This record gives sequence, structure tokens and C-alpha cells, in this order.
Amino acid sequence: MKQAPIEEFLKYIEPGPLALLTTFDGKKKNVMTISWIMPISWDACFTIATGPWNYSYKSLVKTRECAVCIPPANMLETAIGIGCSSGADIDKFKNFKLNYISGETVKAPLLTDCIACLECKVLEHVKRWDLFVMRAVRLVLNEKHKHARMIHAVGDGSFKLDGDTKNYRALMKNKLPPGL
Amino acid sequence: MKQAPIEEFLKYIEPGPLALLTTFDGKKKNVMTISWIMPISWDACFTIATGPWNYSYKSLVKTRECAVCIPPANMLETAIGIGCSSGADIDKFKNFKLNYISGETVKAPLLTDCIACLECKVLEHVKRWDLFVMRAVRLVLNEKHKHARMIHAVGDGSFKLDGDTKNYRALMKNKLPPGL
Repeated sequence: MKQAPIEEFLKYIEPGPLALLTTFDGKKKNVMTISWIMPISWDACFTIATGPWNYSYKSLVKTRECAVCIPPANMLETAIGIGCSSGADIDKFKNFKLNYISGETVKAPLLTDCIACLECKVLEHVKRWDLFVMRAVRLVLNEKHKHARMIHAVGDGSFKLDGDTKNYRALMKNKLPPGL
Repeated sequence: MKQAPIEEFLKYIEPGPLALLTTFDGKKKNVMTISWIMPISWDACFTIATGPWNYSYKSLVKTRECAVCIPPANMLETAIGIGCSSGADIDKFKNFKLNYISGETVKAPLLTDCIACLECKVLEHVKRWDLFVMRAVRLVLNEKHKHARMIHAVGDGSFKLDGDTKNYRALMKNKLPPGL
């Protein structure tokens, strides 16, 4: 995994991909699958929605940090397995044979088979809606997956993979944020 | 456009698509392009992030309602045009020749060339982060675009279109929300 400028976080969150969120509560590391995720600013802030029904929730509330990793299309079945099981019952890292390295700024592990991993600090837990507003503080990329397709959950048990890319940079040059 | 059960809102928001948000402030209708959007509950609540730099922002704050419409791939250039111009300068509906009908529960117009339109009421404006938490109260679908591909903004001036769909309903049957 290779570190990249933090401004590039947008490229991994804005498309609305399925993501894997890892935590470490001091005793046990865990990972959950999320697709309720979106940017909220150009300075690497984004938000996710989750709730107490997720085992990772407590850890997120307690440690106020996590890693958000974007799996490539070939990890779809693993991501579904992670989403359909609970860290309360199993060690998901063992069960799903997840490869990982330590984070540098967070204690949550980084999944090395993902396209990108963001080390994140929780800025606010908006309790009324169970939104966690975070700032990504470090971005690492897996060069091997530079052209990998992301996954998008439809919510009904089906998933869409990225298809064609259309480039409109020239048309949008006045609207592009710095660093992108 | 044909009305559909509101539970199906998830299928149009969860994939993280580019969306067109319409407003009507009592005098002028407007539309903006957004990609910072995600569900926050299974009962048709979702959130978007925007800010005062958007002409629609004032209208959203004032009227507390809007329509969120999901454009198909063939509307990508229109969506970029909408995103790169301001309702302060032009009438976007005329300029981009947008077809629309009136909403039933909101005064914001529904874009009839879109895949789906959601009539939405703002539940809370979380001012600190400029998040608008909304509830979709009515969903209408364009049958013609049933199999159309959605668009996903990458944030760097490029856009990804939906590719293959993978069906894992059987594997996820215990996790699917009612009505999907």
C-alpha cells in the first residue's frame, strides 16, 4: 500500500461505493460492511450512518476512530459475508482470511486487498440520526487495484459493479477541487 | 411516471448515484446536481450535504422540501451542465430543456426523463455540517428507464456508469428490509 495525497479521498468516497469499516476496541479488531457513506466537504470529511445493531458501533463510539477500505469487485462475496455475520459471534479477520496491516494514525487495521484505505477520526456522532461525521487523515492505495471496479449496493440484495468511465475534466475545470 | 412503494427508495439512493435536486421557492424553480447523498434509515430517510454556495440552498432552507431525481446515463452531459451553472444566472429548466411534471406532495418539479423521482420533506438541517436530513414521501418511476444505468461522480471530473449487476438475494435473505 502506498500513501497518497489526502485530497484524493474524494475519488474513493464520492462514487458511493460499498465499503468495509474496520475498528479496534483495544481487545478485538472487527470489520463491517457499509454502503451508507458520502463526502460532506472537500477537506476530507465524510459521513456514514450506522446504528447500535452493528457490533462495530460501540467500538466506533468508544475509540472515535476507524479505517474505511474500498473493496474491489473480486471481494464482493467476502463483503457480503462480512455484512451478514457479526463480530459478536466470530473473528471476521480469521473467518474471511482478511489480509491487513496496521494503521499509522489509527489502531484500526487496513485491509491490504482493498483498492484504497482511509484512516479516519470521528469528529462528531450526530446521535439523533446515528451519523458519524469523520475526517480522513491518511489515504493509502493499492497500486495493483488501480483500475479495479468498485461495488455499489442496491439495497435489495443485488449489487452493481462499475462500468465505463466518462471523462469530463475539461468541461468541469472551473469546478474541480484543488489536488484532483 | 408511475408511483411505486416508498420502501423502494433505497434502490435509487443506496447505489450512490449522481442526482438532480429540484426546488421551487414560490417564484422560481431550480435544479442542482448533487452526488453527496446517502440513505440513513430503511423508512425512507436519507441525507445530502450542500452549502450556501448553491443557489438552491436558500430555497431548501426556506421551503424545507424538494424533489430528488436520478438521471440515467444519457443525461450525464445535462447533469454536468446543470452542475456547472447557477440558477442565479439562468433558468436551468429552459436552458437545458428539462421535461417535468408537478409533484403531488411537494411544490418542487419532477424531472420526467429521470429513472426515478422522490418527493422529499426536510426533517432537519444539521447546520454544523450543512447536512439536510430528509424523508422521501413519494416515489415515482419512469418505466422506460427501468434498466437504465445510473451515473456515479468520481469527484475529479470523471464519472462512472453502472456496469454488471450481481444478484445475491438468496444469500442475504435474512438481511433484506421489508418491501425489497
